[in-house]
Amino acid sequence: MSITIAVDAMGGDHGPKVTVPGSLAALAHENDLNLILVGKPDHIEAQLSKSGPGTSSIQVQPASETVEMNEDPARALRRKKDSSMRVAINLVKSGEADACLSAGNTGALMATSRFVLKTLPGIDRPAIVAALPSLRGHVHVLDLGANVDSPPELLLQFAIMGSVLVKRVEHKPKPSIGLLNIGVEDIKGNGIVKRAAELIQQSGLNYCGYVEGDAIYTGDVDVIVCDGFDGNVALKASEGLATMISSIMREEFSRSAFRKFAGMFALPIVNAFRKKIDHRRYNGATLVGLNGIVIKSHGGADALAFRQSLLVAATAVREKVIGHLSDELSRTLQAVPH
Amino acid sequence: MSITIAVDAMGGDHGPKVTVPGSLAALAHENDLNLILVGKPDHIEAQLSKSGPGTSSIQVQPASETVEMNEDPARALRRKKDSSMRVAINLVKSGEADACLSAGNTGALMATSRFVLKTLPGIDRPAIVAALPSLRGHVHVLDLGANVDSPPELLLQFAIMGSVLVKRVEHKPKPSIGLLNIGVEDIKGNGIVKRAAELIQQSGLNYCGYVEGDAIYTGDVDVIVCDGFDGNVALKASEGLATMISSIMREEFSRSAFRKFAGMFALPIVNAFRKKIDHRRYNGATLVGLNGIVIKSHGGADALAFRQSLLVAATAVREKVIGHLSDELSRTLQAVPH
Repeated sequence: MSITIAVDAMGGDHGPKVTVPGSLAALAHENDLNLILVGKPDHIEAQLSKSGPGTSSIQVQPASETVEMNEDPARALRRKKDSSMRVAINLVKSGEADACLSAGNTGALMATSRFVLKTLPGIDRPAIVAALPSLRGHVHVLDLGANVDSPPELLLQFAIMGSVLVKRVEHKPKPSIGLLNIGVEDIKGNGIVKRAAELIQQSGLNYCGYVEGDAIYTGDVDVIVCDGFDGNVALKASEGLATMISSIMREEFSRSAFRKFAGMFALPIVNAFRKKIDHRRYNGATLVGLNGIVIKSHGGADALAFRQSLLVAATAVREKVIGHLSDELSRTLQAVPH
Repeated sequence: MSITIAVDAMGGDHGPKVTVPGSLAALAHENDLNLILVGKPDHIEAQLSKSGPGTSSIQVQPASETVEMNEDPARALRRKKDSSMRVAINLVKSGEADACLSAGNTGALMATSRFVLKTLPGIDRPAIVAALPSLRGHVHVLDLGANVDSPPELLLQFAIMGSVLVKRVEHKPKPSIGLLNIGVEDIKGNGIVKRAAELIQQSGLNYCGYVEGDAIYTGDVDVIVCDGFDGNVALKASEGLATMISSIMREEFSRSAFRKFAGMFALPIVNAFRKKIDHRRYNGATLVGLNGIVIKSHGGADALAFRQSLLVAATAVREKVIGHLSDELSRTLQAVPH
């Protein structure tokens, strides 16, 4: 099976300087991958030529505009019809690509994807979902920032989508679902969370009740459902803490000649450790609920992280996530009284 | 200056087994401290007698009831008038203690404190605030879970209280304030956050705009203001991540005989590192906005962590936080149109 992914080559903080080497690294890792790099051809080709001989697995698709990282999503959608982001999404719509990937403006990616691809039947708004490392594997958390003030019905849709996604990409028959709250007791939380708990309970999903923020890392459940504001706060706080910890570690190991010496002995251990907590290895969030696969890379991603998000896209295609989502959405939504 | 703190000796997951050794450890650290241990005298004295000769700095105050960790706060307030928690708070009200500390049920501590001590003029609801470690020192975050669905006016009150607290306990003349959001651009967030930004902007505080979750650890601002749901999620997610990282580290250093050997060299470094990220060293959250000092220890605290929260209480008393809060609240609230 050959997989084609459209890459917004201009997106992200670094543009083609990261997206092109990241794309080449993904091609070296996956045999069945073809990439369409979308953007300004001279910018893209300048980076490609730096990387040695060309490959037939890469194609360049021109797009004259670029969505800025802090541009208003509605404005980008209305005005920039030939942006690298928009053209990449169009390639999914037309069937020329199986998925698209962008490290660009998240709001614009979401708005443009919704406009071009539409949502799946039964889904009001797409969510952003990503796997985070836990003590027992991964936990998929959604929504990570696409929706603020999500009503209970939307949280139920997140639960269904998270369950299907994990069933496919992690090959778990009945993923366990937790609902993020500020305590595990029934009296905790606000009216929205309490109503969402009732809906998810009735859905036939493997619902395990409320979880607190630490459940992201204990791995007690496979999927954590939350409003996008809370998910985003948890994700960014975790990134901040992981960065601080890496920095403290570096400092502790370079504080004296003896420590540098001791550090040499411990280097393989410290490297294995840092690799495990490196959030670049978890880059690649899925915009789930769309009628097509759209993956978001962190804007500040480097080539390693960008490559990782391409692998996430390839897995979603390979596991036919969209087809399974459509099937199971209609089945599960029927089980819940509206 | 002599400081007296009432300790809810029965509170927390471990009760006197932790609160008594933690109290003795705090006395060993602070010269001017007196403690009133509140609870069942036989339980408390059994622990005291294990710790060698008595000290005149400790007094035991009987209380016949205990608030359970998962008890409904309203029920505890109504029914348990002789709980160790209630009696400890009463000692603050009567002036016999300068502050009280509990590792017990957070909701019950908040409800009982509000009922007994009342809030300061201008404060609708108290908040929970704690210092978290950042790359540049500490960041004080509030609210950490006392209030869900906080309206903009409450977020302004949090900003004022956080500013005064940091001014006193960190000796910073003009603490910088950030408002937690899911992006730093003006278009991000919901209506509540946007309105809160306007109010804090007008207040004369040193407001620096929106911050994202990672700001807790970068230390870009001194105070982060947020709704209690979001603050609690960020705090718990961070605790979960820190625990996971410690556990991975232990595992990496014990994976083989060579690694254990290398680990011996690196032990002082690893210990210094773990000490820095140990959240027990940041135990002790303040219930700010009350007409009295009430400190909450983590329910699962060990003696080291419990001792730390006693030091937080002693600092709040020493720095006359309540008096300064009253003064500055009335001044700052006058600056904001209602």
